[in-house]
This record gives sequence, C-alpha cells and structure tokens, in this order.
Amino acid sequence: MQKSFEVLGSARDSKARRGRLTTAHGIIDTPAFMPVGTQGSVKGVSPGELRELDAQIILGNTYHLFVRPGLDVIKHFGGLHKFTNWDGPILTDSGGYQIFSLAKLRKIAEDGVEFQNHIDGARAFISPEIAMEIQAALGGDIVMALDECIPYPCEYDYAAQSAEMTTRWAKRCKEANVQRSTSNAQRPTTVASAVSAESKGDALGTAHTTARQLLFGIVQGGTFEDLRKQSAQAIVELDFDGYAIGGVSVGEPEEKMMRAVESAEPFLPKDKPRYAMGLGTPPQLLEMIARGMDMFDCVLPTRLARNGTAFTDTGTLNLKNAEFALDKRPIEENCTCDACREFSRGYIRHLIKAEEILGLRLITLHNLHFYLNLMNRARIEIERGTFDQFRKAFVADYKTREAMRVE
Amino acid sequence: MQKSFEVLGSARDSKARRGRLTTAHGIIDTPAFMPVGTQGSVKGVSPGELRELDAQIILGNTYHLFVRPGLDVIKHFGGLHKFTNWDGPILTDSGGYQIFSLAKLRKIAEDGVEFQNHIDGARAFISPEIAMEIQAALGGDIVMALDECIPYPCEYDYAAQSAEMTTRWAKRCKEANVQRSTSNAQRPTTVASAVSAESKGDALGTAHTTARQLLFGIVQGGTFEDLRKQSAQAIVELDFDGYAIGGVSVGEPEEKMMRAVESAEPFLPKDKPRYAMGLGTPPQLLEMIARGMDMFDCVLPTRLARNGTAFTDTGTLNLKNAEFALDKRPIEENCTCDACREFSRGYIRHLIKAEEILGLRLITLHNLHFYLNLMNRARIEIERGTFDQFRKAFVADYKTREAMRVE
Repeated sequence: MQKSFEVLGSARDSKARRGRLTTAHGIIDTPAFMPVGTQGSVKGVSPGELRELDAQIILGNTYHLFVRPGLDVIKHFGGLHKFTNWDGPILTDSGGYQIFSLAKLRKIAEDGVEFQNHIDGARAFISPEIAMEIQAALGGDIVMALDECIPYPCEYDYAAQSAEMTTRWAKRCKEANVQRSTSNAQRPTTVASAVSAESKGDALGTAHTTARQLLFGIVQGGTFEDLRKQSAQAIVELDFDGYAIGGVSVGEPEEKMMRAVESAEPFLPKDKPRYAMGLGTPPQLLEMIARGMDMFDCVLPTRLARNGTAFTDTGTLNLKNAEFALDKRPIEENCTCDACREFSRGYIRHLIKAEEILGLRLITLHNLHFYLNLMNRARIEIERGTFDQFRKAFVADYKTREAMRVE
Repeated sequence: MQKSFEVLGSARDSKARRGRLTTAHGIIDTPAFMPVGTQGSVKGVSPGELRELDAQIILGNTYHLFVRPGLDVIKHFGGLHKFTNWDGPILTDSGGYQIFSLAKLRKIAEDGVEFQNHIDGARAFISPEIAMEIQAALGGDIVMALDECIPYPCEYDYAAQSAEMTTRWAKRCKEANVQRSTSNAQRPTTVASAVSAESKGDALGTAHTTARQLLFGIVQGGTFEDLRKQSAQAIVELDFDGYAIGGVSVGEPEEKMMRAVESAEPFLPKDKPRYAMGLGTPPQLLEMIARGMDMFDCVLPTRLARNGTAFTDTGTLNLKNAEFALDKRPIEENCTCDACREFSRGYIRHLIKAEEILGLRLITLHNLHFYLNLMNRARIEIERGTFDQFRKAFVADYKTREAMRVE
C-alpha cells in the first residue's frame, strides 16, 4: 500500500518535523492546524473562506453530528463533504471526548458507552464498532479510534484501567475498520440494530466514500508518565495510520501536559503522523511541534473570536477594551488576512460592542489566519533549519507581552 | 447645478419609473433597494459581500450611530465610509424614527426632541439643525430632514399638527444645510454646545465630505389623505433633492399604506427621486414602484434571515421546518446567489437549527440578493414596457403560494 505520510525534513535542535500527509481529498502539509467544524461548520466561516485561508483540513465532531442533524440526514446527502460543501480533507473524531464532556448519564462498560445527548436527552449507545461505522458514514478522510478521555485530576488506578480499555477499544476499531475495508458494502446488522434501538432512528449503513479512510489510534494514560509510555507502546503495537495523544489540555497544568506528550512520543514511530488533540495556545503549538507533534485542532481561534479576543504575535488583544475605540491600526500590522487588510481595530471594536455578527466574523478570520499562518511559518523555519530559534523567540515575546497586557 | 436625478423611462400602465441618481460616491439605478446597515454594518454581511451583491447604496441609522460608537469616534475615522470601509453611496436617516420608536422619555417640542437612548439611558437632544450637523459629520451621500414619525393609529388633530411641525423642521433642515454648504468649516456654536451638554460628549464639527450631500424632505400626515396631500405640497414647496414618504409601514393596514402613498405622490415633482421609507414585502415593493416610488429600505431580508426565513418568488420559506431536512435543492432553483449556488436547503436548515452563524449568513445573502435582484428585474421590465404584467403576475403568484404555505 502507498505510504500516506512522508517526513520531508527535521529540525536539528528539536524533534520538530516537516511532513506531508496524503488523504482521499487532498494533501496536508505538517505541522498542520485543523480548524474545528463542530456541527458541520467552522463557526462563523464559510467553506469558501476556509479555502481562501488555505486551510488544508478541517475537523468534524462525530458526537455533535450524530446528535444533530443525525446520520440519516448526512448519509442522505452523501456524507459530510457533500452535506457541508467542503471538498478538502476532513478528520472526524470518535465522539468519545464529547460523550465524556457533554452528554448526560454516561454508563461506560467494556462493550461501549451509553449516554443521553445534551440536546434532547435521547439515549444512544456507541461502541468501538459503531464509532467506526458512524465515521465511515460521515466519510471523513481521517477517522479516530474510540477512546475514553479521563478527566484531570484522575486516580492512577482508574487511569491505568481506562488506558487498557482504550487499547482494547482501539483493537476493536482497527478490526472493524479492516473488516469494512475488505467488504465495504456489507452491513453489520447487529451493530446497526443496537444503535437504532437506542437513538432517534439514525440509520447506519454503507460508507459513502470508497477511498480508504486513514485510522488513527489514540494514546491515553492521563498525567502518569509510565501509563503514557505503556499506552503508546500498546497502541503502536496495533499499527495505525497515525497516532494521536488524547486526554491532554483537559485542565492539567501546562507542564504536565508537556510531560504527557514527552512520555509517549519516543514510542511513536517516526514515519507516522502524530496528532496532539484539542490544543492549544500559539506558544503551546510551537512547543508541541518541538516535541515531535505534527497535527493540531483547537477551538481557541474561533471561540475567543466570538468574545472579541484576537491573537497576535505578541499575545492576545481583547478588542472590547476602550483603548481600541479610536485605534486606526489593523488587529496586527503587516497581517495579510482580510480583516487586517480592510478594517481597523476601532471599527471591529464597535462591531463587537454592538454585537454585530461582522465583528466576530472578522476576528474569526484573523484568528484562523493567525493559527494557519503560524503553522506555515513553522514549516518554513523547519525547512530552513531555524525552527528552534524561531520557537524560542516567538514564545518569549508572546508570553512577555501577553503578561504585560493582563489587566 | 448639475441635476442629480434623471428619469430614464416610465411604465405605460402605471407610474413606475426607471431612473438614475448620481451621488458623491456613485450612481444608484432606480427603482433601488437599500440594505439597512443599522449600526455601521448590514447585519451578517461584509462590505465586500455587499459589493458582490451589486448593492449600490446602503443605509446607516443616525440614531444608532449617534448612541454607539458616537460621533466623536466616527469623525475620528473620517466619516462613516472610512469607518466601515464601504466606499459606495450611503443614505443616513435623521434619527427621528428611532427616537420615536426606541428611545425612552421623549420630550417633543418645537425646538427639537429630547430623549434618553435605549442603550445606557444617556440624555440627548436633537433639533433639525443638529440632525443636519450629525449627518454632515457621518458623511452620507443622501441625508434626511428631521421629521416626527407618528404612530398608527393616531388622532387627526395630532397628525395634522405634527405634519405641520415636520414641515417647519424640514425648512430649518434646509436652511441649516444651505448654510453649511456655503460656509463649510463654520461651526454653529450654539447647536454644538446644546448637544454636548446633553449627550455623552459626542463632539460635532466640520463635515468630512466636501462633496454636496443630497437632502431629502419627508412627507408625513399619517393615514389621512388630505394631510398627506398638504404635507407633500408644503414639503415640495421647500425644494429638496428628493422626497421621502415617512410614517408608513408603522402598523397600519396595507390598504391604508397604499392610500397614504397615493395621496401624496401626485404632488411630488416627477424629476426628483421618491423614497418610500421602511418597507416592505416583495409584493409591496412592486406595488410601490407602480405608484411612482423609486427607493426603498427595509430590514425584512436581514431580520427574517436571522429567524431562518428565506424569500422566494413564491413566498417565504421557513427553513426551520422539518420538511426541509432532507431537501437537496437550493433555497430557490435558478437563483444565482452564493448560498443557492453552493448549499442545500437541508444543510442550511441544519445550520439554523444548530444556531450556526453560517446559516443566517447564507439566508441573509440570499434574501439581500432576492431584494436587489427584484429591483433589477423591475428596472428591466420598466425599460421593456412590461412592468405591469410582471408586477401583477409576481404579486398573484407570491401571495397565492404564500397563503398555501401558512401553517
């Protein structure tokens, strides 16, 4: 089989890598940032704008889409790409994280997890096999194994048992995925009926893409270094197309987050992409790249935008602040995004204060541009062999100025 | 002085006219629809999108902008065009309508109107002279005389006295406007100090555009035919660049609205543009065009979009309805707007149900396109001499289908 991932170069002073991941809907240059399209839309942004931003891949949240509009709807439209009119690569998560953070009345067992969704309280059941089947129906280019995402803090024993179950779930995901790849149109009746009995009639069935979906396994183990190592070894043993580090950025101190990644990373194969899930700030992303991570997703650029907060090289700006009322400068000097080329901080501040949608649209565009461009800069710096200087200078400047601005 | 308005053609069977209005920031083909940019933004839409929609003019609400961000801010940025980055024509209203519909504790006297704004309750005073000065500072291409907009229903005597005061206010607006045109940089101290004593320090001063602002007078008189006639005659006597019919679409039955326009129209000069303020539905616009009206503004396309309602040739669609969940068609077949070229009713319904901003953005784009395109079709039909057939067929089809869809 053709290799989907290629390492094009590495940094000298860190584990940073420059890579390229090939998917059914296109190429992703790594390090890569994936804007989060929770409910089939990156909040506030159109697919056309994402293309203009040079986003190479977006993320879709299986849990949200499963709850609303439901699989029957997305399948009727021929999968998530056609439903949303985004023709680039899509990564879908397994739904696990949201089940553990949003859903009510969760009952976790070896077989899978039963829950009531947060929208209308309808009961549903997701197993590793069902998670694979749902993601096959969504038609993402990269799909994720079902894992249990434990909270922080968490007892060692629970973290250990959970990581082991996540490994057994990963094995079942792999098997279900292989089975479907080999007999694509075959409908696993038992699984489908298990779902339809529990959910609101979301029908499962044939996958809508025939191209191979890349399957990533997820390393868990909380903040315990030995568990992270064991989990990484066990998951790698199963041989996935890529490896994610999950259960990070769930409330633990930054130092423990870094340590969790550092504990797992040495046991991940160098020729596969590594995805640090659900983080982080701009400095954190650069630190993660230095620790050998290739892919990231984070709601910060879109979520903070809706609150009037913009990212810049020297930290965040809260555009609600009165100091920006008469400011004719763009959010960031020399930024080439549409918001900075056309609009002043003063005008955007007015829009945010007046709760005009255009305000959050403009900051969202800027923030996504900032994150995507930060990855582009990282790629260039890795190619030039200057990533480490770049990272250190960026992190120092960002944190210092940010601290100066805290009110 | 060069004529700003030119009638290019007229319908045979109605008073419909095809015209062209020249302003400091560009040409407006009439009949024209003006998207409403209440607070310095047409809700949900960027200036670039408005240009792509071929919007030739937008409206700005003086009252809203006066309250927030305040004149000092907009003047600091060099006027509304520069503040909002919209370089096409802008019409600003006088603020009167919002003072009478939104503000609290209004005290109307011959001199002007005192009020507390609806945002922070700050007291302010607006007179005809101040309304002219504020609009000069905003820098709109077309500015409106200050009028009293009476509610419906309204006693005859009050309506009569109010219309007479509106005429006296219109005269003062004209005089203030002429005075400023002849001595542009002169600051009328008394007026400025009257404002700064009452408002939150919104500084008044020199106009930011040197090009002449067109000043429109407003006909009032409620639903009384003789008052509408008298008001039209008195306002026309003062010789404005254009004439608006105000105090319509304020809750009166459609028949009375039509009658109010029909009562005033014969007394308006044919060589000046006529603006029917704050309306209406697509059929109402065509009926108004047939009654000799040239310009319109209305919040319906943007406001209904935020509620999930889309305009089509056959009436409105409420995209929240379950019937659209699996609908792969665009909002309207053969529509050339960005929303219809790229997205299905089913996807847009999902976005609206999930409260995703992209949903209201797409319907807003479609609705504005619909209104702007309706005016374009009207212009073509007038030129062809077929406007009346077009109007009758459109109105009949729209109303019949709309009625069939009412739940």
